[in-house]
Amino acid sequence: MRDDELIIIKLGGSAITFKEEFKRPDEETIRRLAGEIASSGVERLIIVHGGGSFGHPLAHRYELHIGLRGDWQLRGLAETHEAMEELNKLVVEALLAKGLPAVPLPPISCFITEAGRISKAFIEPVRAVLGLRAIPVLYGDVVLDEAQGFAILSGDQIVAYLALALGASRVILGLGVDGVFTSDPLKHPDARLIERLRPEDIQALGEGASAALDVTGGMGKKLREMAPIASAGIPVLLVNARRPGLILRALRGEKVRGTLLSIG
Amino acid sequence: MRDDELIIIKLGGSAITFKEEFKRPDEETIRRLAGEIASSGVERLIIVHGGGSFGHPLAHRYELHIGLRGDWQLRGLAETHEAMEELNKLVVEALLAKGLPAVPLPPISCFITEAGRISKAFIEPVRAVLGLRAIPVLYGDVVLDEAQGFAILSGDQIVAYLALALGASRVILGLGVDGVFTSDPLKHPDARLIERLRPEDIQALGEGASAALDVTGGMGKKLREMAPIASAGIPVLLVNARRPGLILRALRGEKVRGTLLSIG
Repeated sequence: MRDDELIIIKLGGSAITFKEEFKRPDEETIRRLAGEIASSGVERLIIVHGGGSFGHPLAHRYELHIGLRGDWQLRGLAETHEAMEELNKLVVEALLAKGLPAVPLPPISCFITEAGRISKAFIEPVRAVLGLRAIPVLYGDVVLDEAQGFAILSGDQIVAYLALALGASRVILGLGVDGVFTSDPLKHPDARLIERLRPEDIQALGEGASAALDVTGGMGKKLREMAPIASAGIPVLLVNARRPGLILRALRGEKVRGTLLSIG
Repeated sequence: MRDDELIIIKLGGSAITFKEEFKRPDEETIRRLAGEIASSGVERLIIVHGGGSFGHPLAHRYELHIGLRGDWQLRGLAETHEAMEELNKLVVEALLAKGLPAVPLPPISCFITEAGRISKAFIEPVRAVLGLRAIPVLYGDVVLDEAQGFAILSGDQIVAYLALALGASRVILGLGVDGVFTSDPLKHPDARLIERLRPEDIQALGEGASAALDVTGGMGKKLREMAPIASAGIPVLLVNARRPGLILRALRGEKVRGTLLSIG
């Protein structure tokens, strides 16, 4: 691990909340992950977390993902953002409790999307927090959208944007599963963990041509979000944040069970 | 009141919190003010609120106003911002309860200061929220500062910045007092309310030349912040938000007891 390396770590919503229950955080996991981050000794770090059961149910109730359809949706912007602030507060307080100088930077006021993709961003606060040797903490959020009124901006898209804009050394995605599998491990007991992926493997997904790699739904979207970072030479490690110690070891640059997405 | 006018209203920290007690909101006043704003029928509105007993004690404890002195201050950024989010949530929920489409836009991620003055800003989200016929809600906050690490950005400075950047029609400052007095009305029973001020009256304050106008401390700072707006032709009305009905009437453009700061 180089001293000047910048790591962006995502704490997935499925790792830090219980997805089945509305707004139920997994506080034990949040505290443990804060401890692992503190123990890693990494100095230049950006943390992005997902929404899990805080974000998705509200975004769904107000149909925020499809954009503006009626005024009834407008209160959903505030409610969804506030739910995300609530989860963010738990994450930030857990980090502070471990002595980490976490600074929350709410995405709703620094990103604008167009048809769901980041079109304008104000990342000076992120740079400034890093300049103070502190840790910017961002999260998936509802944002204003130039084409459709508003949109859900995923933590993954923020990770990808910041990794390219700031030239991150590497990215770690902490998931609720071990990584990318050949098929859904819950349905297929013979599913195998794919330890190594290249960006071109993911491009093939879009064409529906690759039968060997069954990455459906959320995981496919996540990988397509990460492919450009990997193509730019920034390795992305997908690892299970629910298994104690993996995030710590991944931050330290040790080899851990998971999926490494990178070129070469 | 013209249909296309844009009003920026500040809800002062001393109006919506009890300043003597740490983090004690005046929820009754917040609800009443939300009701007055809803009743006014104003369509294009930006709300900015102060921190009162949510912001000041923490900012003071961590000496955030003087900028970076040591790492011990860094956790103060998160704590102060979180306290402000807590108050903001009460304000936004009161507005939503009255049917107003309030959208919180946290200043920490869209403003950067230099030696305490706004040097960079990302106001596209404010424009976008207005474009949805919704109400941006901002507040005094801790922000990153290019010269001193961080700074306290007052709600007043945000009001002034947005009024000039967006060409507001007028500004209403809701205070915990009736307006500007000739001397401190708590100490001097013969203090008179000054109903009319011109920007040049305030410029004189800086030179300490004006004995007729005793605006010390907070009020002097507030007036100096507002002088450039008034000079640009945007009238600023200072009015007591603690007196029921005044904010409603001020929003409607009716004449109310208070101090009007304007040219001409």
